[in-house]
Amino acid sequence: MNAPSAIVHWNGIDDAQRERLLMRPAQEISAEVQAGVGSILEQVRERGDAALRELTLRFDGVEQNRFAVTSEEFAAAEAAVPLELRVAMIAAAQRIEAFHEDGMQRPYAVETAPGVVCERIVRGIGRVGLYVPAGSAPLPSTALMLGVPARLAGCAEVVLCTPPRKDGSADPAVLAAAKLCGIDRVYKLGGAQAIAAMAFGTESVPRCDKLFGPGNAYVTEAKRQASTRADGAAIDMPAGPSEVLVIADAGANPAFVAADLLSQAEHGPDSQVLLISDDAALLAATEREISLQLAQLSRREIAERALASSRLVQVDALADAFEISNRYAPEHLILALREPRAWLDRVQAAGSVFLGDWTPEALGDYCSGTNHVLPTGGAARALGGLSVASFQTAISVQSAQPRGIVAIGPCAMVMAEAEGLGAHRNAVALRLAEARP
Amino acid sequence: MNAPSAIVHWNGIDDAQRERLLMRPAQEISAEVQAGVGSILEQVRERGDAALRELTLRFDGVEQNRFAVTSEEFAAAEAAVPLELRVAMIAAAQRIEAFHEDGMQRPYAVETAPGVVCERIVRGIGRVGLYVPAGSAPLPSTALMLGVPARLAGCAEVVLCTPPRKDGSADPAVLAAAKLCGIDRVYKLGGAQAIAAMAFGTESVPRCDKLFGPGNAYVTEAKRQASTRADGAAIDMPAGPSEVLVIADAGANPAFVAADLLSQAEHGPDSQVLLISDDAALLAATEREISLQLAQLSRREIAERALASSRLVQVDALADAFEISNRYAPEHLILALREPRAWLDRVQAAGSVFLGDWTPEALGDYCSGTNHVLPTGGAARALGGLSVASFQTAISVQSAQPRGIVAIGPCAMVMAEAEGLGAHRNAVALRLAEARP
Repeated sequence: MNAPSAIVHWNGIDDAQRERLLMRPAQEISAEVQAGVGSILEQVRERGDAALRELTLRFDGVEQNRFAVTSEEFAAAEAAVPLELRVAMIAAAQRIEAFHEDGMQRPYAVETAPGVVCERIVRGIGRVGLYVPAGSAPLPSTALMLGVPARLAGCAEVVLCTPPRKDGSADPAVLAAAKLCGIDRVYKLGGAQAIAAMAFGTESVPRCDKLFGPGNAYVTEAKRQASTRADGAAIDMPAGPSEVLVIADAGANPAFVAADLLSQAEHGPDSQVLLISDDAALLAATEREISLQLAQLSRREIAERALASSRLVQVDALADAFEISNRYAPEHLILALREPRAWLDRVQAAGSVFLGDWTPEALGDYCSGTNHVLPTGGAARALGGLSVASFQTAISVQSAQPRGIVAIGPCAMVMAEAEGLGAHRNAVALRLAEARP
Repeated sequence: MNAPSAIVHWNGIDDAQRERLLMRPAQEISAEVQAGVGSILEQVRERGDAALRELTLRFDGVEQNRFAVTSEEFAAAEAAVPLELRVAMIAAAQRIEAFHEDGMQRPYAVETAPGVVCERIVRGIGRVGLYVPAGSAPLPSTALMLGVPARLAGCAEVVLCTPPRKDGSADPAVLAAAKLCGIDRVYKLGGAQAIAAMAFGTESVPRCDKLFGPGNAYVTEAKRQASTRADGAAIDMPAGPSEVLVIADAGANPAFVAADLLSQAEHGPDSQVLLISDDAALLAATEREISLQLAQLSRREIAERALASSRLVQVDALADAFEISNRYAPEHLILALREPRAWLDRVQAAGSVFLGDWTPEALGDYCSGTNHVLPTGGAARALGGLSVASFQTAISVQSAQPRGIVAIGPCAMVMAEAEGLGAHRNAVALRLAEARP
């Protein structure tokens, strides 16, 4: 690894130093981005499609009269996708579906008292909006990660936005992936204006109840602003730069570990990469491997910038590594250990975990079956990754028979009385007065 | 009902009028509240307990040296709670537990390809912070609604804040309810300063990963601000004024319906109350009943103010009522219908549903078993109420054997190639080169 990554001995530093070591690079959104996004949201909310046309011309350099992808465009895109990629996407979608199916919210019913049944019923969210970025590279895998669970959830309408390319078309692989998920309402819109269109609705883009998907700082800020407005939309999760934390023991393969760290680092210059080991030799060997592999990478410059804020940490015992990991709460956690499953119980906070030497993060990014939209920036302490449940709502239902209100009505009256809510008490009392056995 | 509530005929108005009819009173937080809360958050973040002492003196008029409730205070509180209330709270907690138990996130595992196992593991969130208001009235029921699922989720630490009373003590019923849920870390702190203390941590209050519970405009704004800061905490949901929508047919009991509308109206002057029926006589009779019952209410003034923005809507057919309800997405939905269950399939968006004449909302508020922390302001379109799952995180785990990476590695390589991510491709290729059957 390049100059900045000296190995730090965790057990030799104090708590303040540890806190700094685990601090993520500041991700504060600049006031300029906030204001710019606020203005874009306002323009789209007030002037709809007209604003979308102006903003798309300004930011994407494309003049567009219609944003919706036509069936001809879909057909052309599907023809343009190489067969090998098409097959890979179908296989990935199948495994994503196989894993996600079991992650639905389940309806259930419980008789909580004689004559009182409480239930949970589950609904797919009515209209969801998916955002698939196409910045430094188009991401058909993200279309699958959003589209498959949306379909499984039974959402009535699924809308997808992805930025137009310079020639005004959408990326063919993204369109083909959308089609594989049964999505045919795709709009060629990018950035904050795409989020605004789905949050507020315009003449051509329908207003969505919840927005999903990753994006750059503008997209992220637009989702944040939309989610805190009364007239906005819910969002999946706050998004931030991607992260991996690898815990490796003496038996780990330095080439594998280096490759995993680099595949995180190449995501973007703000990606976070941490390696923790109880073995000094493994740390040193991995450092050498990184240098070797780095030279071969197409995205070498991006990876190098990310590595500049990477961390190599030596611990006295592997147990310390899990303490560090739980404190940091990484998006991706790779356990390059001899007995990875035995250590899994110690994992308290992480987005997705990769067990053993033969499970690179790249599998989860594409096709093991798990979702790659995961909590970043420490959000894993309180939040899991995307699942079918993210596209559903649960509604509680209760139903009391007259004997049910006889059974639990007095309890409600006592508590209403204690809280000084006389009308609550009265709503029960009136019924108790009329209940017959 | 008082003057403002003329009956509106849904089928006789145009869509713009319908939109206005279903619009909630503006809930925009004033710039003043936003700035005030921002300043409180900053003070607590920077000066910890010292700021908490100043703010508690200023807002609650109480001088406090320690915020934590002592075991002596707990004992005194439990002794002060009338036996009848204690029994009611225990019975309510048991039913809340009985219903919530089934709502946990389940772990599961799926073999998605030969030699590739994907799993979901579930963890209780490490440290959660509960807020129990005590404004116009203390709310022990809210302590149960937050505390029971937190315990079921297996959260390692549960912290609860509730405002001090004028004499510096906490409400005894709230303390007793907390104790019933096994919570003994209670702090006498209210308002935005309580939220700030739990979000950032101070010398005496530990920093929490996720914050739960209702509150006034300051509490709500503090949660909103804390949830969008990188150094803040996750929150359960945006909170707003409480709402009920009742759909009643000709056979409904006007006295029951009126009592339910009033028990919503007494929550606060900004509560929202809607009644929809296909029967003009029922609407008129309910209006008369409201006037009669209103005269008897202790919280008559509050209820009257809420009723001023209430709606009585007549529809041609009950199916229209469900369209209205789904568009509005009420927190509480009462189906005062002869065949309520037959209509349940039509409910797409609501927080909690109450079936039939014998199921007043008050049951759900206290003791049917369902949670009373529910999505308001239309959030039910994308969000369910609190459940055990709200206090848990799901972590995905994948584990590939060498034959597993042989099975799915090529798929990942093709997709990585298509996305221009060479290091991702390399992480798989290196392993494929070393895999042996």
